[in-house]
Amino acid sequence: MAVKFNNLDKTESFKKLQTLKKTSLKGLITPERIKNSQIEAGGGLTYNYSAKAVTDEIIKALGELALEQELIQKYMEILSGTRMNTGENRMVLHQLTRGETVKPVEENGKNIGAFYAEQKKRIADFANKVHKGEIKGSTGKNFDTVVQIGIGGSDLGPRALYLALEGWAEVNKKSMMDAMFISNVDPDDATAVAASIDPETTLFILVSKSGTTQETLTNQAFVLDIIGKTGSENLDPSKHMIAVTSETSPLAKSDEFLESFYIDDYIGGRYSSTSAVGGAVLSLAFGPETFEAILEGAHDADIRALEADITKNAALMDAMIGLYERNILGFPSTAVLPYSQSLSRFPAHLQQLDMESNGKSVNREGNPINYSTGPVIFGEPGTNGQHSFYQLLHQGTDIIPLQFIGFKNSQRGYDIEIDGSESQTKLNANLAAQITAFALGSDNTNPNKQFNGERPSSLIYGSDLNPESLGALLAHFENKVMFQGLAWNINSFDQEGVQLGKVLTKKLLGDAGNDDISILEAYFKLLDE
Amino acid sequence: MAVKFNNLDKTESFKKLQTLKKTSLKGLITPERIKNSQIEAGGGLTYNYSAKAVTDEIIKALGELALEQELIQKYMEILSGTRMNTGENRMVLHQLTRGETVKPVEENGKNIGAFYAEQKKRIADFANKVHKGEIKGSTGKNFDTVVQIGIGGSDLGPRALYLALEGWAEVNKKSMMDAMFISNVDPDDATAVAASIDPETTLFILVSKSGTTQETLTNQAFVLDIIGKTGSENLDPSKHMIAVTSETSPLAKSDEFLESFYIDDYIGGRYSSTSAVGGAVLSLAFGPETFEAILEGAHDADIRALEADITKNAALMDAMIGLYERNILGFPSTAVLPYSQSLSRFPAHLQQLDMESNGKSVNREGNPINYSTGPVIFGEPGTNGQHSFYQLLHQGTDIIPLQFIGFKNSQRGYDIEIDGSESQTKLNANLAAQITAFALGSDNTNPNKQFNGERPSSLIYGSDLNPESLGALLAHFENKVMFQGLAWNINSFDQEGVQLGKVLTKKLLGDAGNDDISILEAYFKLLDE
Repeated sequence: MAVKFNNLDKTESFKKLQTLKKTSLKGLITPERIKNSQIEAGGGLTYNYSAKAVTDEIIKALGELALEQELIQKYMEILSGTRMNTGENRMVLHQLTRGETVKPVEENGKNIGAFYAEQKKRIADFANKVHKGEIKGSTGKNFDTVVQIGIGGSDLGPRALYLALEGWAEVNKKSMMDAMFISNVDPDDATAVAASIDPETTLFILVSKSGTTQETLTNQAFVLDIIGKTGSENLDPSKHMIAVTSETSPLAKSDEFLESFYIDDYIGGRYSSTSAVGGAVLSLAFGPETFEAILEGAHDADIRALEADITKNAALMDAMIGLYERNILGFPSTAVLPYSQSLSRFPAHLQQLDMESNGKSVNREGNPINYSTGPVIFGEPGTNGQHSFYQLLHQGTDIIPLQFIGFKNSQRGYDIEIDGSESQTKLNANLAAQITAFALGSDNTNPNKQFNGERPSSLIYGSDLNPESLGALLAHFENKVMFQGLAWNINSFDQEGVQLGKVLTKKLLGDAGNDDISILEAYFKLLDE
Repeated sequence: MAVKFNNLDKTESFKKLQTLKKTSLKGLITPERIKNSQIEAGGGLTYNYSAKAVTDEIIKALGELALEQELIQKYMEILSGTRMNTGENRMVLHQLTRGETVKPVEENGKNIGAFYAEQKKRIADFANKVHKGEIKGSTGKNFDTVVQIGIGGSDLGPRALYLALEGWAEVNKKSMMDAMFISNVDPDDATAVAASIDPETTLFILVSKSGTTQETLTNQAFVLDIIGKTGSENLDPSKHMIAVTSETSPLAKSDEFLESFYIDDYIGGRYSSTSAVGGAVLSLAFGPETFEAILEGAHDADIRALEADITKNAALMDAMIGLYERNILGFPSTAVLPYSQSLSRFPAHLQQLDMESNGKSVNREGNPINYSTGPVIFGEPGTNGQHSFYQLLHQGTDIIPLQFIGFKNSQRGYDIEIDGSESQTKLNANLAAQITAFALGSDNTNPNKQFNGERPSSLIYGSDLNPESLGALLAHFENKVMFQGLAWNINSFDQEGVQLGKVLTKKLLGDAGNDDISILEAYFKLLDE
């Protein structure tokens, strides 16, 4: 590999960035700047950064940092199959699920892109047969519901995408099946979902790459138990469950499943929505063409992220401005605020994507670093949030950078005019008003009504929330997180931080001893009395 | 009023707190400490703070701070009807909806507690008549669904409580009606809910204290339009909608409504779940006795919060430890992590409660302050979060204090043993393991697998999530937030920060000029093209 790896604080451009004059948003933002500070992000989306506290000088320095950290070259390495997941010595190939970009990626003579495409094709064929009634439930009824059993990346991303397109699918006659999700090991989760479905017409998807996820295997057994008790006597559970797993997992090719589809170790859970993990449930719910359109939008964003000029690369600009806010301005969190009810769970997906990828304290070689990495990510849809936590965003003692998302048109198309405007117009007027209020504030002689402003935000917007724009939105944030991780010189693709809890849980449920077992047991005892 | 008001940084006890030796969690936590560091919080709940980084010396100083800031006396003033909402010159009486505590609160000869009790009684009578079929829809069918139209506090709290008790109600045969919620001005929100209900059997609750909330009035008109188009010809919308509003609002006593129930200006939106705002929907969904049981649990917590000794007052201890973490240790956010799928939206309610109450930069007299106030609040249920953002909580560069919630028993009661343990046992084993892992960490020669620990958490736990414990949980956090606001000397009961956005939205939708209108319009134009 020709690229070099340096910690952020060792780069010349970061040192330079620290010396540059910071800017106020007041005076900076003009209608001209608003028009000119934007970049196409793919899938018909545009990223606008006019309300971010960055001057041309700062943007130039951020571009130099991207250059010095060789971010585009490193992205090319990822696309080419270099083992950039250093901790686990793995390739990072989620972008390849959307299409080949630089060159074919091969391993031991196997073309991995062709493998992903084959799984997608197998899923499409399977989904089409289910939709046509060629594959039925074991008691002869057509499947009308799909239930995904998975946790983390096997849940949050696919669930967010499903909810994001439910309205679009209804209007566009692409609602093939209802989808539901079981994730939590809390028995109430599976019990509630099981009570609301008809086992005879339900197809379950068990999703676990390793085939060893405690919650998911527990919920599989749980669901089998329930449908065994509530279903018809003739119901054969093995004809109602498919698996998405790796070819080497204990679940692969098991006769417990009607069919198995495969992923591999090169797609992390939080990056797996465009693999078979999202592909099975979304193709069954909305048809394979809809899933394909999501991939096209994502691929469009992936291609655009190759652009070397930061002023033409939305994901790179978003990443570098975020880094500036984190490491120069010192802001510890970021709010994601979609003005679309359909994106109600998209912030929860981004919370995992960002915090699990970049919540790290060692660099890619495993050495401690001296600067802040991933921020806390949280958010709720607007306008709901305006009547909730926006108070703190406007007048709290900390500044929280904001990431707005908006669309010209509503998804379901139904609207009425009240007090001279339609609801969708009101929604977007609120969004425009918030960007302005956060940036510019408003002076008042009553300090309680004083708004200092200077609260930076960006806006990603498009005409419609549809499969293409949703795919691009998903990939935009994946690529933003990737660029930030590369700039911080950390490995965004492992998650060692989730391991200790698993080990201690096993110790508690088993009987193995360890130094902390008495404390563990004391906490467990609280909960058990 | 005999109490004195001082900014936090002017108190002797805060200055002393700054000088005290900080503590490591390693070595501090013992099985003995775990057993002894806990306080009954009401409704059968216990608050355990053994994994918080506070020594006896620090707790003593926090108790002194509570004493110096006269927190219990100020709480008594609130309960007694002193106008503690200084910005709006209003009393703060949400605790009075749960029962009288100190003395009757009167205004112009009117007993306000009696007024709240009367509304509760009217709602109970109404709900009982609906359940018995004595009040029916206009086409003669029984009501089976209730849809709350409201936003902010008229949505998040009632919705979180409804979801929290859905499973309990099913098991305990208290599921009287299904409840749904419309909040967002996004037309897709109302359209989706309207598409999933039968207008002939649905009762709508319009909730707006002022009767002027843009989103809510828009959604009222929106829903009336839809049911006018989709309902039976004989359907009379005025017989399908009730209002919860103030007696002085334009909605009060309107003939557009089947019935109106009243609140007043002394109950803020985010504190209104135990008033008619939560009372109507919860009494209709689960019966008036269930709502009454929620109030009993909340009242129990309110009474316990009067205790002067910090080591016997769970809400006060929680508040003061949070202040210590915010103002001495400098942590900018807090995660709320309920190990119960039924509490899936409880963190969103707490996010509003805390951030809207204490996201302030001026003190109660409107003068700027020099210290941090309310933190960012976010969270998702465990174990889901473990597979998502916990990576950053364990190994990120910032420390995020944690608030765990857990229950011995599942709500729906159905469970099976897999690999030697039931799901509920696994759930709680995970919770105990996480507390331990966050506090103590684990050393590893591989820095990538190193857990430094020192991540403080508290645990609120009980045997069951039921109406009493849920009410206490709600009130615990309300009282925690109140004590923190009083210690910071801010007004936790107004929300001026939400006003500017409303003003600018109106400017944009109307045609009034203002200095920033061209920037506003430029942003709006982006979204409109």
